[in-house]
Amino acid sequence: MPYLALIRHGESQWNLENRFTGWTDVDLSEKGVQQSREAGRRLHGGGYTFDLAFTSYLRRAIRTLWLVQDHMDRMWIPDLKDWRLNERHYGALQGENKAAFEQLYGAEQLHQWRRSYAVRPPLLEPDDPRHARFEAKYAHLDVGQIPASESLADTVHRVLPCWRERIRPRLLAGDDVLVAAHGNSLRGLVKYLEGISDEDIPHLNIPLAVPRVYELAEDGAIRRRFYLRPEGEEAV
Amino acid sequence: MPYLALIRHGESQWNLENRFTGWTDVDLSEKGVQQSREAGRRLHGGGYTFDLAFTSYLRRAIRTLWLVQDHMDRMWIPDLKDWRLNERHYGALQGENKAAFEQLYGAEQLHQWRRSYAVRPPLLEPDDPRHARFEAKYAHLDVGQIPASESLADTVHRVLPCWRERIRPRLLAGDDVLVAAHGNSLRGLVKYLEGISDEDIPHLNIPLAVPRVYELAEDGAIRRRFYLRPEGEEAV
Repeated sequence: MPYLALIRHGESQWNLENRFTGWTDVDLSEKGVQQSREAGRRLHGGGYTFDLAFTSYLRRAIRTLWLVQDHMDRMWIPDLKDWRLNERHYGALQGENKAAFEQLYGAEQLHQWRRSYAVRPPLLEPDDPRHARFEAKYAHLDVGQIPASESLADTVHRVLPCWRERIRPRLLAGDDVLVAAHGNSLRGLVKYLEGISDEDIPHLNIPLAVPRVYELAEDGAIRRRFYLRPEGEEAV
Repeated sequence: MPYLALIRHGESQWNLENRFTGWTDVDLSEKGVQQSREAGRRLHGGGYTFDLAFTSYLRRAIRTLWLVQDHMDRMWIPDLKDWRLNERHYGALQGENKAAFEQLYGAEQLHQWRRSYAVRPPLLEPDDPRHARFEAKYAHLDVGQIPASESLADTVHRVLPCWRERIRPRLLAGDDVLVAAHGNSLRGLVKYLEGISDEDIPHLNIPLAVPRVYELAEDGAIRRRFYLRPEGEEAV
Protein backbone atom coordinates (compact mmCIF):
# COMPACT_ATOMS: atom_id res chain seq x y z
CA MET A 1 0.00 0.00 0.00
CA PRO A 2 1.81 3.12 -1.16
CA TYR A 3 1.78 6.33 0.80
CA LEU A 4 2.02 9.97 -0.15
CA ALA A 5 3.23 12.67 2.19
CA LEU A 6 2.81 16.38 1.54
CA ILE A 7 4.99 18.79 3.42
CA ARG A 8 4.87 22.56 3.36
CA HIS A 9 8.29 24.23 3.67
CA GLY A 10 9.51 25.39 7.08
CA GLU A 11 9.26 29.01 8.18
CA SER A 12 10.82 31.36 5.65
CA GLN A 13 12.50 34.68 6.21
CA TRP A 14 9.42 36.47 4.86
CA ASN A 15 6.94 34.43 6.90
CA LEU A 16 8.91 35.95 9.73
CA GLU A 17 8.80 39.46 8.28
CA ASN A 18 5.07 39.20 7.42
CA ARG A 19 5.63 39.90 3.70
CA PHE A 20 3.85 38.48 0.66
CA THR A 21 6.27 35.97 -0.87
CA GLY A 22 4.73 34.08 -3.79
CA TRP A 23 7.44 33.33 -6.34
CA THR A 24 10.06 35.44 -4.56
CA ASP A 25 12.90 33.03 -3.87
CA VAL A 26 13.26 33.58 -0.14
CA ASP A 27 15.21 31.12 2.01
CA LEU A 28 14.21 29.36 5.23
CA SER A 29 14.75 31.11 8.53
CA GLU A 30 16.85 29.32 11.13
CA LYS A 31 13.60 28.16 12.73
CA GLY A 32 12.47 26.84 9.34
CA VAL A 33 15.68 24.84 9.07
CA GLN A 34 15.08 23.35 12.51
CA GLN A 35 11.45 22.54 11.67
CA SER A 36 12.53 20.75 8.51
CA ARG A 37 15.18 18.71 10.31
CA GLU A 38 12.64 17.74 12.93
CA ALA A 39 10.14 16.67 10.25
CA GLY A 40 12.82 14.50 8.65
CA ARG A 41 13.66 12.87 11.97
CA ARG A 42 9.97 12.24 12.64
CA LEU A 43 9.42 10.60 9.24
CA HIS A 44 12.55 8.53 9.75
CA GLY A 45 11.44 7.51 13.22
CA GLY A 46 8.02 6.55 11.82
CA GLY A 47 9.66 4.12 9.40
CA TYR A 48 8.79 6.03 6.23
CA THR A 49 11.06 5.24 3.30
CA PHE A 50 10.16 7.35 0.29
CA ASP A 51 11.23 6.13 -3.12
CA LEU A 52 11.24 9.57 -4.64
CA ALA A 53 10.32 13.16 -3.96
CA PHE A 54 8.97 16.16 -5.80
CA THR A 55 9.49 19.82 -5.04
CA SER A 56 9.16 23.27 -6.58
CA TYR A 57 11.74 25.61 -8.13
CA LEU A 58 11.88 27.68 -4.95
CA ARG A 59 14.71 27.32 -2.48
CA ARG A 60 12.58 27.28 0.67
CA ALA A 61 10.84 24.12 -0.56
CA ILE A 62 14.00 22.53 -2.00
CA ARG A 63 15.93 23.18 1.21
CA THR A 64 13.09 21.74 3.29
CA LEU A 65 13.15 18.62 1.12
CA TRP A 66 16.95 18.29 1.28
CA LEU A 67 16.91 18.62 5.08
CA VAL A 68 14.18 16.00 5.31
CA GLN A 69 16.07 13.66 2.98
CA ASP A 70 19.25 14.19 4.99
CA HIS A 71 17.60 13.33 8.30
CA MET A 72 15.82 10.33 6.79
CA ASP A 73 19.11 9.03 5.37
CA ARG A 74 17.51 9.26 1.89
CA MET A 75 19.71 11.84 0.19
CA TRP A 76 20.16 9.41 -2.70
CA ILE A 77 16.49 9.23 -3.79
CA PRO A 78 15.43 11.28 -6.84
CA ASP A 79 14.35 14.82 -5.90
CA LEU A 80 12.42 15.99 -8.91
CA LYS A 81 11.75 19.71 -9.29
CA ASP A 82 8.75 21.12 -11.10
CA TRP A 83 7.91 24.82 -11.36
CA ARG A 84 4.21 23.90 -11.30
CA LEU A 85 4.60 23.10 -7.60
CA ASN A 86 5.64 26.71 -6.90
CA GLU A 87 3.70 28.85 -4.48
CA ARG A 88 0.76 30.85 -5.79
CA HIS A 89 2.05 33.94 -7.63
CA TYR A 90 1.06 36.97 -5.60
CA GLY A 91 1.47 39.52 -8.40
CA ALA A 92 2.29 43.08 -7.42
CA LEU A 93 1.85 42.17 -3.76
CA GLN A 94 5.11 40.19 -3.77
CA GLY A 95 7.59 41.71 -1.37
CA GLU A 96 5.06 44.00 0.29
CA ASN A 97 4.39 43.97 3.99
CA LYS A 98 1.01 42.47 4.79
CA ALA A 99 0.20 44.87 7.61
CA ALA A 100 1.16 47.93 5.55
CA PHE A 101 -1.04 46.69 2.69
CA GLU A 102 -3.91 46.20 5.07
CA GLN A 103 -3.57 49.83 6.16
CA LEU A 104 -3.51 50.96 2.53
CA TYR A 105 -6.25 48.83 1.00
CA GLY A 106 -8.30 47.78 4.00
CA ALA A 107 -8.85 44.42 5.62
CA GLU A 108 -11.68 43.44 3.28
CA GLN A 109 -9.64 43.85 0.08
CA LEU A 110 -6.73 41.97 1.63
CA HIS A 111 -9.05 39.20 2.73
CA GLN A 112 -10.37 38.98 -0.85
CA TRP A 113 -6.88 38.59 -2.25
CA ARG A 114 -5.86 36.09 0.35
CA ARG A 115 -8.97 34.05 0.97
CA SER A 116 -11.12 34.04 -2.14
CA TYR A 117 -10.78 31.25 -4.67
CA ALA A 118 -10.88 33.17 -7.93
CA VAL A 119 -9.66 36.72 -7.24
CA ARG A 120 -6.21 37.68 -8.51
CA PRO A 121 -4.03 40.27 -6.81
CA PRO A 122 -2.93 43.16 -9.07
CA LEU A 123 -0.69 41.98 -11.93
CA LEU A 124 3.05 42.52 -12.00
CA GLU A 125 3.93 44.72 -14.96
CA PRO A 126 5.93 42.86 -17.66
CA ASP A 127 8.93 45.14 -17.12
CA ASP A 128 8.80 44.92 -13.34
CA PRO A 129 12.19 43.60 -12.20
CA ARG A 130 10.31 41.19 -9.92
CA HIS A 131 8.81 39.46 -13.00
CA ALA A 132 9.81 35.80 -13.21
CA ARG A 133 10.56 36.10 -16.93
CA PHE A 134 13.88 37.67 -15.93
CA GLU A 135 14.91 34.59 -13.96
CA ALA A 136 17.12 31.89 -15.49
CA LYS A 137 15.13 29.11 -13.91
CA TYR A 138 12.03 29.95 -15.92
CA ALA A 139 13.88 30.56 -19.20
CA HIS A 140 12.66 27.22 -20.58
CA LEU A 141 9.01 28.29 -20.29
CA ASP A 142 6.96 30.15 -22.86
CA VAL A 143 6.39 33.68 -21.63
CA GLY A 144 2.66 32.95 -21.71
CA GLN A 145 3.15 30.20 -19.12
CA ILE A 146 4.77 32.53 -16.57
CA PRO A 147 2.14 34.11 -14.34
CA ALA A 148 2.10 37.80 -13.41
CA SER A 149 -0.46 37.11 -10.66
CA GLU A 150 -2.60 34.14 -9.72
CA SER A 151 -5.83 33.38 -7.95
CA LEU A 152 -5.86 30.18 -5.94
CA ALA A 153 -7.93 28.74 -8.82
CA ASP A 154 -5.07 29.55 -11.23
CA THR A 155 -2.60 27.80 -8.93
CA VAL A 156 -4.78 24.70 -8.69
CA HIS A 157 -5.11 24.72 -12.46
CA ARG A 158 -1.34 24.55 -12.98
CA VAL A 159 -0.60 22.13 -10.13
CA LEU A 160 -2.98 19.40 -11.26
CA PRO A 161 -1.23 18.60 -14.57
CA CYS A 162 1.96 18.01 -12.55
CA TRP A 163 0.01 15.66 -10.29
CA ARG A 164 -1.51 13.78 -13.23
CA GLU A 165 1.61 13.61 -15.37
CA ARG A 166 4.36 13.03 -12.83
CA ILE A 167 3.22 12.26 -9.28
CA ARG A 168 0.15 10.04 -9.56
CA PRO A 169 1.74 7.58 -12.02
CA ARG A 170 4.54 6.89 -9.52
CA LEU A 171 2.05 6.17 -6.73
CA LEU A 172 0.07 3.85 -9.00
CA ALA A 173 3.34 2.08 -9.80
CA GLY A 174 3.70 1.41 -6.07
CA ASP A 175 6.25 4.05 -5.13
CA ASP A 176 6.05 5.97 -1.86
CA VAL A 177 6.20 9.66 -2.67
CA LEU A 178 7.04 12.82 -0.76
CA VAL A 179 6.03 16.26 -2.06
CA ALA A 180 7.68 19.31 -0.50
CA ALA A 181 5.94 22.47 -1.63
CA HIS A 182 3.94 25.52 -0.56
CA GLY A 183 0.76 26.52 1.21
CA ASN A 184 -1.22 27.09 -1.97
CA SER A 185 0.24 24.49 -4.32
CA LEU A 186 -0.47 21.94 -1.57
CA ARG A 187 -3.99 23.33 -1.20
CA GLY A 188 -4.39 22.46 -4.86
CA LEU A 189 -3.37 18.85 -4.28
CA VAL A 190 -5.45 18.49 -1.12
CA LYS A 191 -8.49 20.01 -2.85
CA TYR A 192 -8.24 17.43 -5.60
CA LEU A 193 -7.39 14.47 -3.36
CA GLU A 194 -10.11 15.14 -0.80
CA GLY A 195 -12.73 16.74 -3.05
CA ILE A 196 -12.85 20.01 -1.12
CA SER A 197 -15.09 22.74 -2.55
CA ASP A 198 -13.94 26.04 -4.07
CA GLU A 199 -15.51 27.83 -1.12
CA ASP A 200 -13.81 25.76 1.56
CA ILE A 201 -10.32 25.30 0.18
CA PRO A 202 -9.04 28.86 0.80
CA HIS A 203 -9.69 28.32 4.50
CA LEU A 204 -7.69 25.12 4.79
CA ASN A 205 -4.45 26.05 6.53
CA ILE A 206 -1.62 23.59 6.11
CA PRO A 207 0.92 24.00 8.91
CA LEU A 208 4.59 24.61 8.16
CA ALA A 209 6.81 21.51 8.02
CA VAL A 210 4.23 19.01 9.29
CA PRO A 211 3.88 15.99 6.98
CA ARG A 212 0.31 15.36 5.83
CA VAL A 213 0.31 11.64 5.12
CA TYR A 214 -2.08 9.68 2.89
CA GLU A 215 -2.17 5.91 2.95
CA LEU A 216 -3.48 4.82 -0.41
CA ALA A 217 -5.11 1.73 -1.85
CA GLU A 218 -3.55 0.31 -4.97
CA ASP A 219 -6.10 2.12 -7.13
CA GLY A 220 -5.09 5.42 -5.49
CA ALA A 221 -8.13 5.68 -3.17
CA ILE A 222 -7.36 7.21 0.22
CA ARG A 223 -7.50 4.70 3.07
CA ARG A 224 -6.31 6.93 5.87
CA ARG A 225 -4.97 10.46 6.24
CA PHE A 226 -3.28 12.28 9.09
CA TYR A 227 -0.74 14.84 10.12
CA LEU A 228 2.48 13.43 11.51
CA ARG A 229 2.85 15.78 14.48
CA PRO A 230 5.63 15.76 17.07
CA GLU A 231 3.22 14.16 19.50
CA GLY A 232 2.02 11.51 17.00
CA GLU A 233 -0.56 11.01 14.27
CA GLU A 234 -3.53 13.40 14.14
CA ALA A 235 -6.38 12.37 11.82
CA VAL A 236 -7.55 15.00 9.32
CA MET B 1 30.13 25.57 -26.61
CA PRO B 2 29.04 23.38 -23.70
CA TYR B 3 31.22 22.81 -20.69
CA LEU B 4 31.62 19.95 -18.28
CA ALA B 5 32.94 20.33 -14.75
CA LEU B 6 34.03 17.44 -12.57
CA ILE B 7 34.28 17.99 -8.86
CA ARG B 8 35.51 15.59 -6.22
CA HIS B 9 33.67 15.86 -2.90
CA GLY B 10 35.14 17.97 -0.11
CA GLU B 11 37.11 16.46 2.76
CA SER B 12 35.18 13.66 4.45
CA GLN B 13 35.30 12.53 8.04
CA TRP B 14 37.35 9.48 7.03
CA ASN B 15 39.76 11.45 4.83
CA LEU B 16 40.46 13.16 8.12
CA GLU B 17 40.77 9.90 10.07
CA ASN B 18 42.95 8.27 7.36
CA ARG B 19 40.58 5.33 6.86
CA PHE B 20 39.65 3.47 3.66
CA THR B 21 36.18 4.68 2.74
CA GLY B 22 35.00 3.25 -0.58
CA TRP B 23 31.24 2.74 -0.45
CA THR B 24 30.99 3.54 3.26
CA ASP B 25 28.54 6.42 3.45
CA VAL B 26 30.64 8.88 5.41
CA ASP B 27 29.71 12.55 5.56
CA LEU B 28 31.77 15.66 4.86
CA SER B 29 33.89 17.11 7.64
CA GLU B 30 33.30 20.76 8.55
CA LYS B 31 36.30 21.60 6.37
CA GLY B 32 34.72 19.63 3.52
CA VAL B 33 31.55 21.68 3.88
CA GLN B 34 33.56 24.90 3.67
CA GLN B 35 35.53 23.65 0.66
CA SER B 36 32.29 22.82 -1.14
CA ARG B 37 30.73 26.21 -0.40
CA GLU B 38 33.88 27.91 -1.63
CA ALA B 39 33.82 25.85 -4.86
CA GLY B 40 30.20 26.87 -5.42
CA ARG B 41 31.03 30.53 -4.91
CA ARG B 42 33.97 30.26 -7.29
CA LEU B 43 31.86 28.64 -10.03
CA HIS B 44 29.18 31.26 -9.49
CA GLY B 45 31.75 34.06 -9.63
CA GLY B 46 33.15 32.55 -12.84
CA GLY B 47 29.75 32.84 -14.51
CA TYR B 48 29.12 29.09 -14.82
CA THR B 49 25.45 28.18 -15.10
CA PHE B 50 25.00 24.43 -15.20
CA ASP B 51 21.81 23.05 -16.70
CA LEU B 52 21.98 19.84 -14.73
CA ALA B 53 24.20 17.83 -12.45
CA PHE B 54 25.06 14.21 -11.74
CA THR B 55 26.25 12.68 -8.53
CA SER B 56 26.68 9.33 -6.79
CA TYR B 57 24.57 7.57 -4.15
CA LEU B 58 26.98 8.62 -1.40
CA ARG B 59 26.23 11.53 0.89
CA ARG B 60 29.67 13.15 0.76
CA ALA B 61 29.24 13.67 -3.00
CA ILE B 62 25.56 14.61 -2.81
CA ARG B 63 26.21 17.11 -0.03
CA THR B 64 29.10 18.62 -1.99
CA LEU B 65 26.79 19.00 -4.98
CA TRP B 66 23.97 20.52 -2.93
CA LEU B 67 26.33 23.03 -1.34
CA VAL B 68 27.70 23.97 -4.76
CA GLN B 69 24.17 24.32 -6.17
CA ASP B 70 23.17 26.43 -3.19
CA HIS B 71 26.08 28.84 -3.57
CA MET B 72 25.58 29.05 -7.34
CA ASP B 73 21.88 29.87 -6.84
CA ARG B 74 21.09 26.71 -8.90
CA MET B 75 19.26 24.59 -6.34
CA TRP B 76 16.45 24.14 -8.89
CA ILE B 77 18.47 22.31 -11.57
CA PRO B 78 18.10 18.51 -11.82
CA ASP B 79 20.57 16.67 -9.58
CA LEU B 80 20.59 13.16 -10.95
CA LYS B 81 22.02 10.39 -8.81
CA ASP B 82 23.63 7.27 -10.23
CA TRP B 83 25.26 4.55 -8.13
CA ARG B 84 27.75 3.98 -10.96
CA LEU B 85 29.41 7.27 -9.97
CA ASN B 86 30.17 5.87 -6.49
CA GLU B 87 33.72 5.68 -5.21
CA ARG B 88 35.75 2.57 -6.00
CA HIS B 89 34.67 -0.24 -3.67
CA TYR B 90 37.54 -0.98 -1.32
CA GLY B 91 36.37 -4.46 -0.26
CA ALA B 92 37.44 -5.70 3.14
CA LEU B 93 39.67 -2.64 3.56
CA GLN B 94 36.63 -0.38 4.06
CA GLY B 95 36.66 1.18 7.50
CA GLU B 96 40.24 0.15 8.24
CA ASN B 97 42.91 2.64 9.18
CA LYS B 98 45.43 3.09 6.37
CA ALA B 99 48.45 3.37 8.66
CA ALA B 100 47.46 0.29 10.68
CA PHE B 101 47.04 -1.71 7.47
CA GLU B 102 50.41 -0.58 6.26
CA GLN B 103 51.92 -1.95 9.48
CA LEU B 104 50.09 -5.23 9.00
CA TYR B 105 50.56 -5.89 5.29
CA GLY B 106 53.55 -3.75 4.41
CA ALA B 107 53.86 -0.66 2.25
CA GLU B 108 54.28 -2.62 -0.98
CA GLN B 109 51.00 -4.54 -0.63
CA LEU B 110 49.18 -1.35 0.30
CA HIS B 111 50.67 0.44 -2.67
CA GLN B 112 49.47 -2.42 -4.93
CA TRP B 113 45.94 -2.08 -3.65
CA ARG B 114 45.94 1.66 -3.89
CA ARG B 115 47.97 2.41 -6.99
CA SER B 116 47.73 -0.52 -9.38
CA TYR B 117 45.10 -0.50 -12.11
CA ALA B 118 43.85 -4.07 -11.98
CA VAL B 119 44.45 -5.38 -8.44
CA ARG B 120 41.44 -5.82 -6.17
CA PRO B 121 41.63 -5.51 -2.40
CA PRO B 122 40.37 -8.59 -0.48
CA LEU B 123 36.64 -9.19 -1.05
CA LEU B 124 33.99 -8.41 1.52
CA GLU B 125 32.27 -11.64 2.56
CA PRO B 126 28.61 -11.80 1.43
CA ASP B 127 27.42 -11.88 5.05
CA ASP B 128 29.69 -9.06 6.18
CA PRO B 129 27.43 -6.35 7.64
CA ARG B 130 29.43 -3.81 5.60
CA HIS B 131 28.16 -5.43 2.36
CA ALA B 132 26.16 -3.01 0.23
CA ARG B 133 23.50 -5.64 -0.46
CA PHE B 134 22.11 -4.84 3.01
CA GLU B 135 21.56 -1.19 2.10
CA ALA B 136 18.17 0.06 0.93
CA LYS B 137 19.72 2.31 -1.68
CA TYR B 138 21.10 -0.64 -3.66
CA ALA B 139 17.98 -2.80 -3.32
CA HIS B 140 17.01 -2.12 -6.94
CA LEU B 141 20.24 -3.71 -8.22
CA ASP B 142 20.81 -7.37 -9.02
CA VAL B 143 23.06 -8.83 -6.36
CA GLY B 144 25.56 -9.60 -9.10
CA GLN B 145 25.88 -5.90 -9.87
CA ILE B 146 26.90 -5.00 -6.32
CA PRO B 147 30.67 -5.17 -5.91
CA ALA B 148 32.40 -6.80 -2.93
CA SER B 149 35.71 -5.19 -3.95
CA GLU B 150 36.93 -3.35 -7.03
CA SER B 151 40.14 -2.62 -8.83
CA LEU B 152 40.36 0.79 -10.45
CA ALA B 153 39.73 -1.04 -13.74
CA ASP B 154 36.43 -2.37 -12.34
CA THR B 155 35.42 1.13 -11.32
CA VAL B 156 36.22 2.55 -14.76
CA HIS B 157 34.23 -0.29 -16.30
CA ARG B 158 31.07 0.62 -14.37
CA VAL B 159 31.47 4.42 -14.65
CA LEU B 160 31.71 4.54 -18.44
CA PRO B 161 28.20 3.21 -19.19
CA CYS B 162 26.86 6.02 -17.00
CA TRP B 163 28.90 8.49 -19.03
CA ARG B 164 27.71 7.06 -22.34
CA GLU B 165 24.05 6.60 -21.40
CA ARG B 166 23.34 9.65 -19.27
CA ILE B 167 26.06 12.32 -19.21
CA ARG B 168 27.48 12.53 -22.72
CA PRO B 169 24.06 12.79 -24.46
CA ARG B 170 23.26 15.88 -22.40
CA LEU B 171 26.53 17.55 -23.37
CA LEU B 172 25.93 16.72 -27.04
CA ALA B 173 22.48 18.26 -26.67
CA GLY B 174 24.21 21.48 -25.60
CA ASP B 175 23.68 21.33 -21.85
CA ASP B 176 26.37 22.44 -19.40
CA VAL B 177 26.92 19.62 -16.94
CA LEU B 178 28.41 19.32 -13.46
CA VAL B 179 29.48 15.93 -12.06
CA ALA B 180 30.12 15.69 -8.30
CA ALA B 181 31.74 12.38 -7.48
CA HIS B 182 34.82 10.63 -6.06
CA GLY B 183 38.57 10.29 -6.58
CA ASN B 184 38.30 7.02 -8.48
CA SER B 185 35.03 7.40 -10.35
CA LEU B 186 36.36 10.73 -11.62
CA ARG B 187 39.67 9.04 -12.55
CA GLY B 188 37.51 6.81 -14.74
CA LEU B 189 35.95 9.78 -16.53
CA VAL B 190 39.27 11.63 -16.88
CA LYS B 191 40.98 8.49 -18.20
CA TYR B 192 38.36 8.18 -20.92
CA LEU B 193 38.14 11.89 -21.74
CA GLU B 194 41.88 12.47 -21.94
CA GLY B 195 43.01 9.05 -23.15
CA ILE B 196 45.24 8.37 -20.15
CA SER B 197 46.91 4.94 -20.01
CA ASP B 198 46.17 2.16 -17.50
CA GLU B 199 49.65 2.70 -16.06
CA ASP B 200 49.33 6.44 -15.59
CA ILE B 201 45.77 6.82 -14.38
CA PRO B 202 46.31 5.46 -10.82
CA HIS B 203 48.81 8.25 -10.26
CA LEU B 204 46.49 11.08 -11.28
CA ASN B 205 45.39 12.78 -8.08
CA ILE B 206 42.27 14.88 -8.32
CA PRO B 207 42.17 17.45 -5.52
CA LEU B 208 39.19 17.70 -3.19
CA ALA B 209 36.48 20.20 -4.15
CA VAL B 210 38.39 21.86 -7.02
CA PRO B 211 36.33 21.95 -10.24
CA ARG B 212 38.11 20.40 -13.23
CA VAL B 213 36.52 22.17 -16.17
CA TYR B 214 36.37 21.01 -19.79
CA GLU B 215 35.32 23.36 -22.55
CA LEU B 216 33.96 21.22 -25.32
CA ALA B 217 33.34 21.59 -29.02
CA GLU B 218 29.90 20.71 -30.27
CA ASP B 219 31.09 17.24 -31.24
CA GLY B 220 32.33 16.68 -27.68
CA ALA B 221 36.06 17.24 -28.45
CA ILE B 222 37.96 18.98 -25.66
CA ARG B 223 38.95 22.55 -26.52
CA ARG B 224 40.44 23.55 -23.21
CA ARG B 225 40.74 22.06 -19.73
CA PHE B 226 41.75 23.52 -16.39
CA TYR B 227 41.26 23.47 -12.65
CA LEU B 228 39.25 26.37 -11.28
CA ARG B 229 41.45 27.15 -8.29
CA PRO B 230 40.92 29.91 -5.71
CA GLU B 231 43.69 31.88 -7.43
CA GLY B 232 42.25 31.35 -10.95
CA GLU B 233 42.39 28.87 -13.82
CA GLU B 234 45.27 26.37 -13.90
CA ALA B 235 45.69 24.44 -17.15
CA VAL B 236 45.91 20.64 -16.86
